[in-house]
Amino acid sequence: MKKLYGVGTGPGNPDLLTLRSVNIIREVDIIFTPNNKGKNMALDTAREFIQDKEVVYLDFPMGEVVKKDYEKAAKIILDRIPEAGKGAFLTIGDPMIYSTFIYLMEELEDQEIHIEISPGIPSFLAGAGEAKVALTTKGDSFILCDEFQEDLLDYGDSLAILKTLRNKEELINTLEENKYDYDYLKKISLEDQRILKNKEEILRDKNYMSLILARKEGKK
Amino acid sequence: MKKLYGVGTGPGNPDLLTLRSVNIIREVDIIFTPNNKGKNMALDTAREFIQDKEVVYLDFPMGEVVKKDYEKAAKIILDRIPEAGKGAFLTIGDPMIYSTFIYLMEELEDQEIHIEISPGIPSFLAGAGEAKVALTTKGDSFILCDEFQEDLLDYGDSLAILKTLRNKEELINTLEENKYDYDYLKKISLEDQRILKNKEEILRDKNYMSLILARKEGKK
Repeated sequence: MKKLYGVGTGPGNPDLLTLRSVNIIREVDIIFTPNNKGKNMALDTAREFIQDKEVVYLDFPMGEVVKKDYEKAAKIILDRIPEAGKGAFLTIGDPMIYSTFIYLMEELEDQEIHIEISPGIPSFLAGAGEAKVALTTKGDSFILCDEFQEDLLDYGDSLAILKTLRNKEELINTLEENKYDYDYLKKISLEDQRILKNKEEILRDKNYMSLILARKEGKK
Repeated sequence: MKKLYGVGTGPGNPDLLTLRSVNIIREVDIIFTPNNKGKNMALDTAREFIQDKEVVYLDFPMGEVVKKDYEKAAKIILDRIPEAGKGAFLTIGDPMIYSTFIYLMEELEDQEIHIEISPGIPSFLAGAGEAKVALTTKGDSFILCDEFQEDLLDYGDSLAILKTLRNKEELINTLEENKYDYDYLKKISLEDQRILKNKEEILRDKNYMSLILARKEGKK
């Protein structure tokens, strides 16, 4: 049977790939990745292990992606993996966290293909290590979200908040009012990584590859 | 200056180490790890890369660990790393998630030592991949906790709940009443990994290396 691996390439530095992911990328017949206009970070991260292997770019529309788009991409994957061969779909971070792979997997689950997942280091986790901020200690809860709402602060001793561009000022004010410390992280693990703590600097930044780690003041 | 790496060894399978962690383990002068009575999973995971390097076991009391215990361990680390040398503290999962390393780091932050963190794949993340269950999709929130309370279900579209032994039956009943699907995962990534979905089987299991992944019914 054909086999597809969902491979998480981590936050962007090649040395944050797991040994398993490297082995998979080396051994598969064909590589799939979403067709990002411009830079393709998953592909860049894995480049040295892909070498001259065939890469198929899967198109997803900008803005809302619907079931039909995933069906189409799933069909391409199924068609392009050779008989009894193997393919890898590369995705930044981890395939089970805010990833296109979750939907592709759903489209493929009743097909004649075996699916396996090779986890990757999510950016918020690498970011916590770089900022030396604990995500969770005994008895704590940690919340990961891409749409912040103030109520989450009732339950999260710490939070990783993705997609902060939309309402960054309001978000930071809410964190301050509720006595949370915060770090703004961008391009984690890459050469031009930045960790910002100054509110004005954070508000000026417009990078979409950014996230905020927040933790209740006084917590370890 | 001396240098200490906090290295996350992941859930237990050596091939889930990152390239960075492998390089660090190979290059340091000395390895530190908590002295677990019996099996030491962090050490077992990294064994083939440690080879005959010196390993120092740090004692932490069973039950409550207090500041004095961390101070003592931090002093041993500082003393045992050679001048201008490097050490690695190995911890299962990731150093920033429910780890002893968080407290050691605090004790060492004003000392003459440079600290760096090499992230690891947390067990809940590897487990989501093995169970093929999404942790988060667009607009969702994910909660990680080691002390479950029903209120968390108001905010978590999915949850990873560690330390389920204490009140497993009550926990599962609460998940069912609130219409959450759940998987019980144990020894993730190891040869004897199990993923249980049957309530009776889950209740019979007493493994402490287990966790529950829960996700709102009907969610992708």
